[in-house]
Amino acid sequence: MIGIFDSGIGGLTVAREIRKKIPSADILYFGDVARMPYGNKSPETVTEYSREIVRYLIGRGAETIVIACNTASAVATSKLRREFSVPIFDVIAPAVKVALQPTTCNLQPDQKIAVLGTRATVGSGAYQKALAAASKKIKVTALACPIFVPLVEEGYAGTAEGAEIVKHTLRPLVSRKPETIILGCTHYPLLKKEIRAVFPKARLVDSSAVADEVLKKYREKGERRGKTGRIEIVVTDLTPHFLRFARKIIGSAAKIKKIGVERLNK
Amino acid sequence: MIGIFDSGIGGLTVAREIRKKIPSADILYFGDVARMPYGNKSPETVTEYSREIVRYLIGRGAETIVIACNTASAVATSKLRREFSVPIFDVIAPAVKVALQPTTCNLQPDQKIAVLGTRATVGSGAYQKALAAASKKIKVTALACPIFVPLVEEGYAGTAEGAEIVKHTLRPLVSRKPETIILGCTHYPLLKKEIRAVFPKARLVDSSAVADEVLKKYREKGERRGKTGRIEIVVTDLTPHFLRFARKIIGSAAKIKKIGVERLNK
Repeated sequence: MIGIFDSGIGGLTVAREIRKKIPSADILYFGDVARMPYGNKSPETVTEYSREIVRYLIGRGAETIVIACNTASAVATSKLRREFSVPIFDVIAPAVKVALQPTTCNLQPDQKIAVLGTRATVGSGAYQKALAAASKKIKVTALACPIFVPLVEEGYAGTAEGAEIVKHTLRPLVSRKPETIILGCTHYPLLKKEIRAVFPKARLVDSSAVADEVLKKYREKGERRGKTGRIEIVVTDLTPHFLRFARKIIGSAAKIKKIGVERLNK
Repeated sequence: MIGIFDSGIGGLTVAREIRKKIPSADILYFGDVARMPYGNKSPETVTEYSREIVRYLIGRGAETIVIACNTASAVATSKLRREFSVPIFDVIAPAVKVALQPTTCNLQPDQKIAVLGTRATVGSGAYQKALAAASKKIKVTALACPIFVPLVEEGYAGTAEGAEIVKHTLRPLVSRKPETIILGCTHYPLLKKEIRAVFPKARLVDSSAVADEVLKKYREKGERRGKTGRIEIVVTDLTPHFLRFARKIIGSAAKIKKIGVERLNK
């Protein structure tokens, strides 16, 4: 079973991608709705929450963990890998890998890369370090866009007002003319149209790249074909808002269950 | 000592108002930053968080509790009053009281009242019920404005883009022509200018009204004059963002301390 977690809804887009690529896998998705969002919280708090969730997922039988949250990936991955023995995938390394691939119209990797993320993700420097380690030639600009998550959550994607806020937020990047933009938060792909309106020529890379990495691992282990995997969603708080989003992204196949946060500490 | 709590920063404006009216009172302010915001969470989760905090504040010596959060006031007040014996003030009843006062240009109370709040506050019906109980003549329209808190937190108050979002959000209210608007969230006063641009004639009522109620209680008990009270701030997560806001609202007098969420369960 693959255990996937996020602070809330965003990671469901990663779960959907993994389900598409590995239909036979059983998936247990954990959304920490009672304590979301993670993006404005301190590294210590996000790490502690992530640790509790990984412990829970392993306790439920997860043999592989996917941190489907950029903030948790940025601040907690290395600690979690030291503490737990199951394979733990983060969403940052796969996105960086894709960002560094030569594009069809360019035999060299792009050299001006922008990273958009939450305050915690950008503050951690995780993307910046990974890109710098890959090549000295790359010029990286990272920009925290903390208003993007609420914009998506509150339905402003696709509205003129939402587009104005996106444009305003991205203004510091305009003069940099990035060739590739990493959408370093699972909510941001839902603002692709608005981001593309500001940077029509840039290539956009998102967190779904992790699905290919998980698939590779699965193939090595020998994928069980034929059966369709189950998907279960566990949340720390169940709001009508979450339900609506979950149905939209995953469909009605998923069983959704609420557990109290206090259950995580046991 | 007065214990005041909120999910994060907003309640500090209430704490400031209480400090201004009762300078001799010692104040312990609790901001549940590690689990904020409350406005999109379920009543059960918000009630459980509030219970833990009240228990902590009383344990620290608070003799009076002020729920400086509209969401917690809306969903948890009656349960908390049953469970704890200290006086517990909420921010809803005082705001309703002010909203029902005749205005200077109108000897009758206003009859068209709009309530703005988080999804949880509006969904609870707390304001609507309190207003309906006071008068059958009042026409109440309640509107959830879940994007307002992130707008304020991310610095969009005072920007053209923020004003556009506020205008867009308030659109369903325009045809109602409200005479009084209750700002049912401690963040919303920071968008007063933007709200006033949409409703230039409406009277705006906010949560600071609770300070008068607390003052009345203090006078009954005999306020200790002469000394200046201490203010201490305890948070479940300490981010540079919180620090900046806290300093702006309260000044540098306050001692700020972080405690882990797990401490609340003991």
